[in-house]
Amino acid sequence: MAKDSLRLSDVLRCPQAPVDINAIDTGATPEAPGDKDKTLKQFEPMAEELSELQERLFARGRSNPEARRVLVVLQGLDTAGKGGVVRHVFGLVDPQGIHHHSFKAPTDEELEHDFLWRVRKALPEPGMLGVFDRSHYEDVLVARVDSLVEEKVWKERYNIINEFELELVANGYNIIKCFLHISPQTQKERLEARLDNPAKYWKYNPSDLDTRSKWSDYMDAYNDVLSLCNPDVAPWYIIPADHKWYRNWAVGRILLETMRSMKLTWPPADFDVEEEKQRLSQA
Amino acid sequence: MAKDSLRLSDVLRCPQAPVDINAIDTGATPEAPGDKDKTLKQFEPMAEELSELQERLFARGRSNPEARRVLVVLQGLDTAGKGGVVRHVFGLVDPQGIHHHSFKAPTDEELEHDFLWRVRKALPEPGMLGVFDRSHYEDVLVARVDSLVEEKVWKERYNIINEFELELVANGYNIIKCFLHISPQTQKERLEARLDNPAKYWKYNPSDLDTRSKWSDYMDAYNDVLSLCNPDVAPWYIIPADHKWYRNWAVGRILLETMRSMKLTWPPADFDVEEEKQRLSQA
Repeated sequence: MAKDSLRLSDVLRCPQAPVDINAIDTGATPEAPGDKDKTLKQFEPMAEELSELQERLFARGRSNPEARRVLVVLQGLDTAGKGGVVRHVFGLVDPQGIHHHSFKAPTDEELEHDFLWRVRKALPEPGMLGVFDRSHYEDVLVARVDSLVEEKVWKERYNIINEFELELVANGYNIIKCFLHISPQTQKERLEARLDNPAKYWKYNPSDLDTRSKWSDYMDAYNDVLSLCNPDVAPWYIIPADHKWYRNWAVGRILLETMRSMKLTWPPADFDVEEEKQRLSQA
Repeated sequence: MAKDSLRLSDVLRCPQAPVDINAIDTGATPEAPGDKDKTLKQFEPMAEELSELQERLFARGRSNPEARRVLVVLQGLDTAGKGGVVRHVFGLVDPQGIHHHSFKAPTDEELEHDFLWRVRKALPEPGMLGVFDRSHYEDVLVARVDSLVEEKVWKERYNIINEFELELVANGYNIIKCFLHISPQTQKERLEARLDNPAKYWKYNPSDLDTRSKWSDYMDAYNDVLSLCNPDVAPWYIIPADHKWYRNWAVGRILLETMRSMKLTWPPADFDVEEEKQRLSQA
């Protein structure tokens, strides 16, 4: 991959046109630096650059309540690797600067409010690198597939989501949305692996198979999400996720490219440096 | 260091007797596996074991609201390395399982409540590995040194803290409290480094020098903390912290020893494994 000429963000960017997710190869590895081993070798330099950019982001947030923030939204079916991305990509940088939130089925209290209520509460503070494992998109995915609300309710939500994300962008958020795309066969293998290993039982839930049986309904729902909520300021990326090494590298790389584009400089001193050096020499 | 015969936790355990922190060598490296290079080589195997133990802790928390939790309290003067420990020790494991909270000067809202109110709100959930950068101990440290409350108020807090921590232990918390102990000379060098490097200006605050000028008052306040709030179930460890590599290794090692002692097994399946294998084969 030519270092700066081709941005992976452009390659994996979800097109702004009706999308058919079924037509996209889940096993592809576009622009990977090489095979698995070669790609894994790229994690160390990627970690180094990401760490510095994250620290700059964080530093700027310390002194400025209007500092920028980054929000990465991870979506995908069970076993697509949302948790793996958190561990292997967000685990590359200082945990102090990470704001991780995992969305489960809404609680009774959450259901008493509009669907964005719990999302607003979970947003990262200025300077933070936020990551959502699932998100407000569940309210047009599982809510639609399982008819948890009436059709006219979930249909209105696409616009509400678009307005919400525009509001976030206006308030200094950089939003990156990643759909981790796996094949039904890959899911089957990963579920088998969970049932074959007592150290992985906790990751398995019998309801995963019920969800699996609605695969094509979910693909329809994702097609609408990707087609209807995909502005340039809050873009979707479609990450082929059958290969874990590629999935992790690709999300890391898109995050890196996004953070590079933010031109994050170190915040200036808000004190007189020479005067403080003087004071310190006598302290 | 003999692998299992000698526990670093025993070596760095703060004695249960009146403590004089000034008598403890900040540059020591007790039981280090070797010099800096040799010690840093121990981080990879330590990370591997810590990661697995943290995942077990997390897995148990998923299915059981009474699962154990770990809370690491980091205290120390400016530049002692609280942030460095978060990055280099807690950065070794899955960010998904880390609950990090940094305590700043209390807000107006926080001041309207008792001093533990904000601490209770920041406690880790079951299964989480929590880390506090500063803590309720600030309420008997800065609050005392700067006379933010009357003497009789802060004097009552030692007992309140002891009762609070006992309550946490009874509710399934494993508490580890680390005092990162540096010399005045080390602090001076680290502050100089912050003033010499624009990438570190953000870590510097002119008020750091005011705090520095009260060094011996802080040592007195720490001596009381270490002497009065040090039960076996919520122990203090005194970490010589002039060497960053030693400080990080020591905190990681104590965390590892503590988590080993918890005998964390993988949670059993809460479903019929064979039945699910059968279902999956047909799904």
